[in-house]
Parts: sequence; C-alpha cells; structure tokens
Amino acid sequence: MKIAILPGDGIGPEITAQAVKVLKALGESFEMESAEVGGAGYAAHGHPLPEKTLALAKAADAVLFGAVGDYQYDSLARALRPEQAILGLRKELGLFANLRPAILYPELAGASTLKPEVVSGLDILIIRELTGDIYFGKPRGVRECPDGPFAGQREGFDTMRYAEGEIRRIAHVAFQAARKRGSRVTSVDKANVLETFQFWRDIVTEVHKDYQDVELEHMYVDNAAMQLVRAPKKFDVIVTGNMFGDILSDAAAMLTGSIGMLPSASLDAGNKGLYEPSHGSAPDIAGKGVANPLATILSAAMMLRFSLGKAEQADRIENAVKAVLAQGLRTPDIFEEGTTRVGTEQMGDAVVNALA
Amino acid sequence: MKIAILPGDGIGPEITAQAVKVLKALGESFEMESAEVGGAGYAAHGHPLPEKTLALAKAADAVLFGAVGDYQYDSLARALRPEQAILGLRKELGLFANLRPAILYPELAGASTLKPEVVSGLDILIIRELTGDIYFGKPRGVRECPDGPFAGQREGFDTMRYAEGEIRRIAHVAFQAARKRGSRVTSVDKANVLETFQFWRDIVTEVHKDYQDVELEHMYVDNAAMQLVRAPKKFDVIVTGNMFGDILSDAAAMLTGSIGMLPSASLDAGNKGLYEPSHGSAPDIAGKGVANPLATILSAAMMLRFSLGKAEQADRIENAVKAVLAQGLRTPDIFEEGTTRVGTEQMGDAVVNALA
Ligand SMILES: CC(C)[C@H](C(=O)O)[C@@H](O)C(=O)O
Ligand SMILES: CC(C)[C@H](C(=O)O)[C@@H](O)C(=O)O
Repeated sequence: MKIAILPGDGIGPEITAQAVKVLKALGESFEMESAEVGGAGYAAHGHPLPEKTLALAKAADAVLFGAVGDYQYDSLARALRPEQAILGLRKELGLFANLRPAILYPELAGASTLKPEVVSGLDILIIRELTGDIYFGKPRGVRECPDGPFAGQREGFDTMRYAEGEIRRIAHVAFQAARKRGSRVTSVDKANVLETFQFWRDIVTEVHKDYQDVELEHMYVDNAAMQLVRAPKKFDVIVTGNMFGDILSDAAAMLTGSIGMLPSASLDAGNKGLYEPSHGSAPDIAGKGVANPLATILSAAMMLRFSLGKAEQADRIENAVKAVLAQGLRTPDIFEEGTTRVGTEQMGDAVVNALA
Repeated sequence: MKIAILPGDGIGPEITAQAVKVLKALGESFEMESAEVGGAGYAAHGHPLPEKTLALAKAADAVLFGAVGDYQYDSLARALRPEQAILGLRKELGLFANLRPAILYPELAGASTLKPEVVSGLDILIIRELTGDIYFGKPRGVRECPDGPFAGQREGFDTMRYAEGEIRRIAHVAFQAARKRGSRVTSVDKANVLETFQFWRDIVTEVHKDYQDVELEHMYVDNAAMQLVRAPKKFDVIVTGNMFGDILSDAAAMLTGSIGMLPSASLDAGNKGLYEPSHGSAPDIAGKGVANPLATILSAAMMLRFSLGKAEQADRIENAVKAVLAQGLRTPDIFEEGTTRVGTEQMGDAVVNALA
C-alpha cells in the first residue's frame, strides 16, 4: 500500500515527520513517498500543487497532508497561493466528504474556553461536503454590476450550487456514520433564505427515508452556530455544505480548546482519502520543535481505518495517544500546571513507545 | 415623530408592549401606530408583509419590530413564510447596516457557557451588511445542472454578489462606529476562496485610507468563528457581509448567554431604522408572560439614539435597565440562584419605575 506524504509549510514538515515515525513503528510494510505542496510546492516548482505532487497523490492509496501557508506567500496572486493546493487536491481527487470529529479528551477538559459542564465528554462529528457549493461554483469573478441601484459599478460575484447527486452522496455518508455512533443527524442549512439549501433540505429529507433508524433534524446555520456555543453536546453528527461546514467545523474544533488534537479525513467515493490535522500551518512556531503532532498522528490513524483497511492499527495509535495524555505529556498548546511539557519529537517518540 | 410598531408573532406582542410602555413613560409625544407582520400579517391579510404594514413602515421615522415566526406557518410556501417580512422590510426600506452589540452585563456573567475570564466585560459590535450578498443576489432557483459530473440533474443555486458602493457604505459605517469605541475594525471575509470577498477586502482596504486613525485587520470567516470562541474580547468592531454576519452575530450573541438582553438596529442611508431584539419569536413560551422584554426595550433605546435624535432618553432607558439588573430582577431566561424571578410585565414595569 502506497501513502503519499505531503508535509507542506510551517509546522507541516515537523508534525508529518512524527506521524511517519508512528506509521513506521507499526511493523506494516507501507510504501511512503513525499512531495512538496503549498508554499513549498511553489518554491520548488512554481506552483502550490505541482504536477508531480498531484500525480503522486493520484497514484497513492491515501494521502497524509501536513499544512500549508506561510507569510512569504501571502502576497502571491490567488492562483499561486498555498491554499490552492488543498482546494485543487480536493477537486482533483474527488474528496467530497470531509469528516471532522470534535472530541474533548477528558484530560484536556481544562483547555476549553467553555465551562467544563458544557463541554466535558464532547464527541461530535462534523461532515462537511467538500467539492461543491460556492467554493467551486461558476460563474464567478469581478464584473460590471448589471442592474439595480449600483448598476455600472464593479461587483464581485460567486455562484453557490448543489446538484441532487452531490447532496445525496454526502447525506448517505452522514446517515451511515450516524448509525455507528448516536444515530442522530443534524442537517445544517439556510433553507429560509437560499434556494440551494431549500433544495438541500428536500434531498436530505428524501435520502433519510432509507435510514428510518436514524433521527434527522434540520437546523438553520445561524441557529447551529448558537447551539454549538450553548449546548454542543446535544449534537451527534452534523452534516452541511462546504461553506457552512468551513465555519462550523472550525468553531466546533475550538470548543475543545485543543485544536492541536483534532484530525480530519477527506474521502472520495471509494476508499481513498486525504488525512490532515484540523489546525493550520502555524508559521509563527515553525521549526521551534514545539508544535503538537497528535492531530497529525490521529489523522494517520483515520487513514489506517478508512483507506487502508487496518482498523486494529488505527485503534493501536488512538490508544497510544490516550496513553501519552494519561502519562501527563503535553506540548505547549495543551500544557497545564501539573503536567509535563514536551516538544514535538518527544511527543512523537512517546506515542511510538506507547504502541508497544 | 412617528413610530411604526410591528409586534409580529410568538412572544413579539408581549415584549413589544413593554417597550411601548417604556417609550410612553418618557414623557415625549411620539405618535405610535401598530400593524400586523409575519405570521400575524399572513393571518390577517394573506401576506407576511401586508401592503398596509409596509406603507406604515415607510411613512414612519422608525420601526420597532418584535419577532416573527410560529409553528403553524412552517408549512407555508417560502414566499408566504413569516421571515419574508423581515427580508422584505430590509430591502424595501434600504436598511443596509445592521448593528448588533454583543455585551455581557457584569450581573449576568454567570449566564454565559464560557468561562468568566473569557467573556467578562465583553463588548463587541457586529456590523452586518443587510441588503446585499447571497440573500438577494440573482439568478437563483432550481434548474438543470448545465455541466460537470452531475449534468442533467436538478441543482439548487444562488448568486453571491457585492457591488463596490455597497461595500463602501458599510465600511464607512464600521470605521465611523469604531471611532466612537475602541478604534479597531476587523473585516471578516473569505478572500482566499470567494471572488466576492476578495473584492470586499480590496474595497474595505481602500475605504480605510480615510480612517488612518482606526486600526483595520482582515480575518477569514472560519478563523473569526474560532476567535469568537477562543478570545472574543480581542474584537472591537466586526464588519462583514450579510451571510457571514448572520452566522457570526448569532454566535457572538450566544457567547453572552443572555440573548434576551441584546438589541439590534438596522439602518438606512439617512436616519431611519428598524429596531428589534436579537432573539427570535420563541413560540414555545409565547403568551406565558415569561419572555424577557429587555432586548426590545434596549432596541427602543437604540431607536431613540439613532433615528429620533434623543440620545438622552436613550441613556435614560439604558440606565434604567442597568438599575433593574442591579436590583436583582430577572426573567426566567437569565434567572440565577439569589436573584428575584419576575415576568414580562413586571420587568417592563420595573424599567418604567427605574426611569424616574
Ligand atoms: C485554506 C482554505 C481554502 C480551507 C477552506 O476554506 O476549505 C480551510 O479553511 C479548510 O477548512 O480546510
Ligand atoms: C429569519 C432570517 C431570514 C434572518 C436572516 O437570516 O437574516 C434572521 O436569521 C436574522 O438574522 O435576522
């Protein structure tokens, strides 16, 4: 089995290195090959998603992705900026289903800005559609405003859109995931304002007929943003579109106070997926050896489970992570009085040791 | 001066009645006239925004709005549902600037789901553009998907758009509001993905040249959602588009834990405005006399300040609200051990008494 390793920028290389170390320690024979992506792709080959990198990702059974983005690329034209790499990979590999668990580890309950009783035991799964919506809809651009009070002025515009089949397949993913958890799905939309999401609501309701054992609730996105703050534990699985999912999944991750712990999976219609931490490239701490590698290590566990058919190895990694937390080891982002502060490599080593 | 009173549905009538009582107690000679809106408009005249109601709102110097929406209207066609009234009023009256303060009263610090140190003293102002963006952009609807892997299927679609002048005027509102506060503006966009919001960022940056005394920061909407949870007190004024503003302003309101306290103003290019509580129509508690009228009473204060040129009377109301909180009076939504539970009318009466 072949894994493409795309470390990227900022802390990407250091955290990815720890995940690779953990994967190697499993005693399986994975073929791993690395390539530049993001700012590093631009620096090496003039494009954030170089052809070689895309070809490697396409040929692999799974992709382990670090993070992209760094200050020196901020002034590039949009088409050359690091984040185009991740948008391109999603689209080119057909990674339409983004799974982002927001889990609060009992040991880290204090890290949250929310009161312990509101978040302790939090375990929600956000499923974000990843290849449709206003992210890729056309036409888009800057044009002359055709009518209304601003006619003749320049206007920026984009197209939001979802086709029936796109909604159906992500709804199936959500209902199936819910069956393995609390059997409840909250579909988040803005059906009271947007045609796209009235249509979304109609289709999700239709797909639900095949899953009568799963409870379905529809919720407006503004209300969902409120409920995530007010009573996040009421959610089990949240399914939503690309744009709303971008916002809500980050808010949900931040509820835990430990975004350095949260993995993600972006899956295609088969078994292939791209796995990356939920946090970003954090260029301010890059190269200092202080970044938390656990989100990336846990992303590797998701990869084993979803793409490589190695659920037991995934369990081993997840248990090892729990063990190092129980040992009191903490990178600075999750450090608290009374625990032991460790760096990126030490944390990776501790997970390797805990595998045994 | 003429005030249109639009109580609406659910708890709308009871909370609006308290605000009217407070306005009457000021000793000014306001002309107030009521009309049905939302579900009540549909029930009385077959449309959520009856012609008479719109005419009254247009003729008035300001509109005091309760809330709309109730279970029995949920199955109506979209064009007849209660929320169309508020969308119609915004568009017809040109209410492009929505001001929503998220303030945590010291007495209510415990009501928040966030830790006291994260939210105590919170005072942010969200300025949401209210007549543009994907809320009103055309074309929109359900059509046959023209191309791509889903060609031939049905698809829902909408158009996001902002013209230069629309961005300019809301940016001016934000910078001017910031000058009266902490002199910092965070403009929230998704310039890394959306053409509309790359354009937004460019125009806001241009307008900022006239306000060099105000600090301007640009932030992506996903990051803003995270920072609101992580460190909300870092914000002063947030300015954003209609869709992002819908989500972020509700999240910000919920940070306080007391959305029953939060007013809002929706202003046109002159002095006219529509004033309403930030919370909804809460049909589950309607008619029980337990709803919190303070958000509506504080909305009336904003009306006095922004539309009626009566800043002193606005101060009087705001001080009276602070006084009743200091007296320990609480409606059930903000009740805590050790305070005095009161109903909607008692709370209104207490504010009237505190005016003296
Ligand atoms: C970098 C950006 C394009 C991306 C997105 O908006 O999808 C990011 O925020 C994410 O959530 O992965
Ligand atoms: C009712 C709905 C159309 C409205 C909106 O989305 O603007 C509401 O959520 C609000 O924020 O006033």
